[in-house]
Amino acid sequence: MRTTTLKLVTVIAESILEDRLVREMHHLGAKGYTIAQARGEGTRGMPTIDMGGQNVRIEMLVSDEVAERIMAHLAEHYFTDYAVIVYAVDAQVLRSEKYL
Amino acid sequence: MRTTTLKLVTVIAESILEDRLVREMHHLGAKGYTIAQARGEGTRGMPTIDMGGQNVRIEMLVSDEVAERIMAHLAEHYFTDYAVIVYAVDAQVLRSEKYL
Amino acid sequence: MRTTTLKLVTVIAESILEDRLVREMHHLGAKGYTIAQARGEGTRGMPTIDMGGQNVRIEMLVSDEVAERIMAHLAEHYFTDYAVIVYAVDAQVLRSEKYL
Repeated sequence: MRTTTLKLVTVIAESILEDRLVREMHHLGAKGYTIAQARGEGTRGMPTIDMGGQNVRIEMLVSDEVAERIMAHLAEHYFTDYAVIVYAVDAQVLRSEKYL
Repeated sequence: MRTTTLKLVTVIAESILEDRLVREMHHLGAKGYTIAQARGEGTRGMPTIDMGGQNVRIEMLVSDEVAERIMAHLAEHYFTDYAVIVYAVDAQVLRSEKYL
Repeated sequence: MRTTTLKLVTVIAESILEDRLVREMHHLGAKGYTIAQARGEGTRGMPTIDMGGQNVRIEMLVSDEVAERIMAHLAEHYFTDYAVIVYAVDAQVLRSEKYL
Protein backbone atom coordinates (compact mmCIF):
# COMPACT_ATOMS: atom_id res chain seq x y z
CA MET A 1 0.00 0.00 0.00
CA ARG A 2 1.49 3.31 -1.04
CA THR A 3 1.37 5.88 1.74
CA THR A 4 2.78 9.40 1.61
CA THR A 5 4.15 11.34 4.57
CA LEU A 6 2.40 14.65 5.14
CA LYS A 7 2.40 17.02 8.09
CA LEU A 8 -0.47 16.78 10.54
CA VAL A 9 -0.65 20.31 11.91
CA THR A 10 -2.63 20.89 15.11
CA VAL A 11 -3.63 24.38 16.24
CA ILE A 12 -5.14 24.94 19.67
CA ALA A 13 -6.67 28.34 20.36
CA GLU A 14 -9.55 30.14 22.04
CA SER A 15 -12.89 29.21 20.44
CA ILE A 16 -13.52 32.83 19.52
CA LEU A 17 -10.66 32.61 17.02
CA GLU A 18 -12.04 29.56 15.20
CA ASP A 19 -13.64 31.19 12.17
CA ARG A 20 -10.75 33.54 11.64
CA LEU A 21 -8.15 30.78 11.95
CA VAL A 22 -10.01 28.41 9.63
CA ARG A 23 -10.30 31.14 7.01
CA GLU A 24 -6.60 31.93 7.29
CA MET A 25 -5.50 28.27 7.25
CA HIS A 26 -7.59 27.77 4.12
CA HIS A 27 -5.99 30.79 2.52
CA LEU A 28 -2.53 29.42 3.40
CA GLY A 29 -3.27 26.16 1.58
CA ALA A 30 -5.07 23.74 3.95
CA LYS A 31 -7.79 21.85 2.06
CA GLY A 32 -9.74 20.47 5.02
CA TYR A 33 -9.92 20.54 8.81
CA THR A 34 -11.13 18.51 11.71
CA ILE A 35 -12.27 20.61 14.63
CA ALA A 36 -12.94 19.46 18.18
CA GLN A 37 -13.68 21.22 21.44
CA ALA A 38 -10.97 21.22 24.08
CA ARG A 39 -10.00 22.89 27.28
CA GLY A 40 -6.62 24.42 27.89
CA GLU A 41 -4.90 24.70 31.20
CA GLY A 42 -2.26 27.20 32.32
CA THR A 43 1.05 27.69 30.61
CA ARG A 44 4.05 29.26 32.23
CA GLY A 45 4.30 32.91 31.43
CA MET A 46 0.67 33.51 30.63
CA PRO A 47 -2.27 33.74 32.99
CA THR A 48 -4.39 30.60 33.25
CA ILE A 49 -7.41 32.58 32.20
CA ASP A 50 -6.00 32.94 28.69
CA MET A 51 -6.31 29.22 28.07
CA GLY A 52 -8.79 28.24 30.77
CA GLY A 53 -11.94 28.79 28.74
CA GLN A 54 -13.32 26.87 25.82
CA ASN A 55 -10.75 26.13 23.17
CA VAL A 56 -10.79 24.58 19.74
CA ARG A 57 -8.35 22.04 18.40
CA ILE A 58 -8.01 22.34 14.64
CA GLU A 59 -6.22 19.55 12.75
CA MET A 60 -5.08 19.66 9.14
CA LEU A 61 -3.12 17.34 6.86
CA VAL A 62 -0.90 19.50 4.68
CA SER A 63 2.37 19.52 2.72
CA ASP A 64 5.62 20.45 4.47
CA GLU A 65 5.48 23.79 2.72
CA VAL A 66 1.95 24.63 3.87
CA ALA A 67 2.83 23.49 7.40
CA GLU A 68 5.77 25.91 7.42
CA ARG A 69 3.54 28.68 6.14
CA ILE A 70 0.87 28.05 8.79
CA MET A 71 3.40 27.96 11.61
CA ALA A 72 5.12 31.13 10.41
CA HIS A 73 1.76 32.89 10.07
CA LEU A 74 0.68 31.97 13.59
CA ALA A 75 4.05 32.98 15.02
CA GLU A 76 3.84 36.36 13.33
CA HIS A 77 0.20 37.21 13.96
CA TYR A 78 -0.84 35.38 17.13
CA PHE A 79 2.05 34.44 19.40
CA THR A 80 2.38 37.88 20.97
CA ASP A 81 -1.25 38.42 21.90
CA TYR A 82 -2.89 34.99 22.03
CA ALA A 83 -2.29 31.69 23.81
CA VAL A 84 -2.13 29.77 20.53
CA ILE A 85 -0.37 26.40 20.41
CA VAL A 86 0.73 24.86 17.11
CA TYR A 87 2.68 21.70 16.38
CA ALA A 88 3.37 19.45 13.41
CA VAL A 89 3.68 15.67 13.35
CA ASP A 90 4.66 13.38 10.46
CA ALA A 91 1.62 11.38 9.36
CA GLN A 92 1.34 8.66 6.74
CA VAL A 93 -1.71 9.04 4.54
CA LEU A 94 -3.34 7.40 1.56
CA ARG A 95 -4.43 9.40 -1.51
CA SER A 96 -2.32 12.35 -0.42
CA GLU A 97 -3.35 14.32 -3.52
CA LYS A 98 -6.57 15.07 -1.69
CA TYR A 99 -4.70 17.26 0.78
CA LEU A 100 -2.28 19.01 -1.58
CA MET B 1 12.25 2.73 30.28
CA ARG B 2 11.51 0.37 27.44
CA THR B 3 9.09 1.84 24.92
CA THR B 4 7.96 0.22 21.69
CA THR B 5 6.98 2.07 18.52
CA LEU B 6 3.46 1.29 17.35
CA LYS B 7 1.21 3.01 14.85
CA LEU B 8 -1.37 5.44 16.15
CA VAL B 9 -4.08 5.23 13.51
CA THR B 10 -6.72 7.98 13.42
CA VAL B 11 -9.93 7.61 11.43
CA ILE B 12 -12.29 10.56 10.97
CA ALA B 13 -15.72 9.82 9.55
CA GLU B 14 -19.41 10.68 9.78
CA SER B 15 -20.86 9.73 13.17
CA ILE B 16 -23.35 7.43 11.52
CA LEU B 17 -20.47 5.15 10.52
CA GLU B 18 -19.09 4.78 14.07
CA ASP B 19 -20.51 1.40 15.04
CA ARG B 20 -19.73 -0.15 11.70
CA LEU B 21 -16.17 1.20 11.66
CA VAL B 22 -15.45 0.12 15.24
CA ARG B 23 -16.70 -3.38 14.47
CA GLU B 24 -14.55 -3.55 11.35
CA MET B 25 -11.43 -2.14 13.03
CA HIS B 26 -11.84 -4.71 15.78
CA HIS B 27 -12.17 -7.47 13.20
CA LEU B 28 -8.99 -6.21 11.49
CA GLY B 29 -7.01 -6.49 14.73
CA ALA B 30 -7.42 -3.30 16.79
CA LYS B 31 -7.74 -4.14 20.50
CA GLY B 32 -9.08 -0.81 21.78
CA TYR B 33 -10.24 2.60 20.64
CA THR B 34 -10.58 6.12 21.86
CA ILE B 35 -13.49 7.96 20.30
CA ALA B 36 -14.19 11.68 20.36
CA GLN B 37 -16.67 13.93 18.65
CA ALA B 38 -15.37 16.26 15.98
CA ARG B 39 -16.53 18.47 13.18
CA GLY B 40 -15.15 18.30 9.69
CA GLU B 41 -14.92 21.14 7.27
CA GLY B 42 -14.81 21.04 3.48
CA THR B 43 -12.21 19.21 1.45
CA ARG B 44 -11.39 19.98 -2.13
CA GLY B 45 -13.32 17.78 -4.47
CA MET B 46 -16.16 16.92 -2.14
CA PRO B 47 -19.06 19.08 -1.06
CA THR B 48 -18.69 20.65 2.37
CA ILE B 49 -21.92 19.01 3.44
CA ASP B 50 -20.24 15.60 3.36
CA MET B 51 -17.99 16.51 6.25
CA GLY B 52 -19.88 19.45 7.75
CA GLY B 53 -22.02 17.43 10.13
CA GLN B 54 -21.09 15.60 13.27
CA ASN B 55 -18.06 13.41 12.88
CA VAL B 56 -16.23 10.94 15.03
CA ARG B 57 -12.50 10.68 15.49
CA ILE B 58 -11.46 7.11 16.27
CA GLU B 59 -7.91 6.49 17.50
CA MET B 60 -6.21 3.12 17.83
CA LEU B 61 -2.73 1.93 18.75
CA VAL B 62 -1.88 -1.02 16.53
CA SER B 63 1.00 -2.91 14.94
CA ASP B 64 2.36 -1.81 11.55
CA GLU B 65 0.61 -4.77 10.00
CA VAL B 66 -2.81 -3.96 11.46
CA ALA B 67 -2.36 -0.29 10.48
CA GLU B 68 -1.73 -1.36 6.88
CA ARG B 69 -4.76 -3.60 6.98
CA ILE B 70 -7.02 -0.85 8.36
CA MET B 71 -5.84 1.68 5.79
CA ALA B 72 -6.25 -0.78 2.91
CA HIS B 73 -9.73 -1.70 4.14
CA LEU B 74 -10.87 1.92 4.34
CA ALA B 75 -9.39 2.70 0.93
CA GLU B 76 -11.22 -0.23 -0.62
CA HIS B 77 -14.59 0.10 1.10
CA TYR B 78 -15.03 3.78 1.98
CA PHE B 79 -12.92 6.16 -0.08
CA THR B 80 -15.23 6.15 -3.09
CA ASP B 81 -18.47 6.89 -1.27
CA TYR B 82 -17.55 8.47 2.06
CA ALA B 83 -15.52 11.45 3.25
CA VAL B 84 -13.35 9.24 5.46
CA ILE B 85 -9.90 10.45 6.54
CA VAL B 86 -7.27 8.07 7.87
CA TYR B 87 -3.67 8.63 8.86
CA ALA B 88 -0.98 6.82 10.84
CA VAL B 89 1.63 8.31 13.16
CA ASP B 90 4.54 6.59 14.94
CA ALA B 91 3.85 6.50 18.67
CA GLN B 92 6.04 5.25 21.51
CA VAL B 93 4.13 3.19 24.03
CA LEU B 94 4.73 1.20 27.19
CA ARG B 95 3.47 -2.36 27.58
CA SER B 96 2.88 -2.68 23.86
CA GLU B 97 1.68 -6.28 24.25
CA LYS B 98 -1.64 -4.80 25.36
CA TYR B 99 -2.27 -3.50 21.84
CA LEU B 100 -0.98 -6.44 19.80
CA MET C 1 11.64 28.80 10.44
CA ARG C 2 13.35 27.22 13.40
CA THR C 3 11.31 24.38 14.88
CA THR C 4 12.33 22.13 17.76
CA THR C 5 11.26 18.52 18.23
CA LEU C 6 9.48 17.88 21.51
CA LYS C 7 7.40 14.96 22.71
CA LEU C 8 3.63 15.23 22.44
CA VAL C 9 2.47 13.00 25.27
CA THR C 10 -1.18 11.87 25.27
CA VAL C 11 -2.78 10.32 28.34
CA ILE C 12 -6.25 8.76 28.14
CA ALA C 13 -7.94 7.90 31.42
CA GLU C 14 -11.24 7.88 33.26
CA SER C 15 -12.59 11.41 33.80
CA ILE C 16 -12.55 10.90 37.54
CA LEU C 17 -8.73 10.86 37.41
CA GLU C 18 -8.42 14.18 35.56
CA ASP C 19 -7.59 16.52 38.44
CA ARG C 20 -5.17 14.09 40.01
CA LEU C 21 -3.40 13.38 36.72
CA VAL C 22 -3.12 17.06 35.78
CA ARG C 23 -1.63 17.84 39.18
CA GLU C 24 0.87 15.01 38.86
CA MET C 25 1.82 15.85 35.26
CA HIS C 26 2.43 19.45 36.34
CA HIS C 27 4.59 18.24 39.21
CA LEU C 28 6.57 16.06 36.77
CA GLY C 29 7.37 19.06 34.59
CA ALA C 30 4.51 19.62 32.09
CA LYS C 31 3.86 23.37 31.66
CA GLY C 32 0.46 23.20 29.97
CA TYR C 33 -2.25 20.79 28.90
CA THR C 34 -5.04 20.46 26.40
CA ILE C 35 -7.92 18.37 27.66
CA ALA C 36 -10.79 16.91 25.66
CA GLN C 37 -13.59 14.50 26.40
CA ALA C 38 -13.39 11.07 24.85
CA ARG C 39 -14.90 7.65 25.07
CA GLY C 40 -12.87 4.50 25.37
CA GLU C 41 -13.91 1.13 24.14
CA GLY C 42 -12.78 -2.31 25.33
CA THR C 43 -9.21 -3.47 25.46
CA ARG C 44 -8.20 -7.09 25.55
CA GLY C 45 -7.65 -8.26 29.07
CA MET C 46 -9.79 -5.69 30.81
CA PRO C 47 -13.55 -5.48 30.99
CA THR C 48 -15.15 -2.99 28.63
CA ILE C 49 -16.71 -1.24 31.56
CA ASP C 50 -13.30 0.00 32.68
CA MET C 51 -12.96 2.20 29.62
CA GLY C 52 -16.57 2.42 28.50
CA GLY C 53 -17.50 5.50 30.49
CA GLN C 54 -16.48 9.07 30.05
CA ASN C 55 -12.77 9.51 29.56
CA VAL C 56 -10.42 12.44 29.26
CA ARG C 57 -7.65 12.84 26.74
CA ILE C 58 -4.85 14.98 28.14
CA GLU C 59 -2.17 16.23 25.74
CA MET C 60 1.11 17.88 26.71
CA LEU C 61 4.17 19.09 24.82
CA VAL C 62 7.21 18.27 26.91
CA SER C 63 10.94 17.50 26.72
CA ASP C 64 12.12 13.91 26.16
CA GLU C 65 13.10 13.78 29.81
CA VAL C 66 9.70 14.89 31.11
CA ALA C 67 7.98 12.48 28.71
CA GLU C 68 10.05 9.62 30.15
CA ARG C 69 9.19 10.73 33.66
CA ILE C 70 5.45 10.92 32.93
CA MET C 71 5.39 7.50 31.28
CA ALA C 72 7.38 5.91 34.11
CA HIS C 73 5.10 7.52 36.69
CA LEU C 74 1.93 6.24 35.00
CA ALA C 75 3.41 2.77 34.60
CA GLU C 76 4.30 2.63 38.28
CA HIS C 77 1.17 4.16 39.79
CA TYR C 78 -1.69 3.48 37.36
CA PHE C 79 -1.09 0.55 35.04
CA THR C 80 -2.01 -2.12 37.57
CA ASP C 81 -5.31 -0.65 38.70
CA TYR C 82 -6.50 1.70 35.96
CA ALA C 83 -7.20 1.48 32.24
CA VAL C 84 -4.76 4.33 31.50
CA ILE C 85 -3.29 4.70 28.01
CA VAL C 86 -0.19 6.81 27.38
CA TYR C 87 1.83 7.35 24.24
CA ALA C 88 4.42 9.82 22.96
CA VAL C 89 4.80 11.23 19.47
CA ASP C 90 7.56 13.46 18.05
CA ALA C 91 6.15 16.92 17.37
CA GLN C 92 7.81 19.96 15.80
CA VAL C 93 7.05 23.17 17.64
CA LEU C 94 7.92 26.84 17.53
CA ARG C 95 9.12 28.71 20.62
CA SER C 96 9.85 25.47 22.43
CA GLU C 97 11.13 27.34 25.49
CA LYS C 98 7.48 27.86 26.40
CA TYR C 99 7.11 24.14 27.11
CA LEU C 100 10.45 23.45 28.83
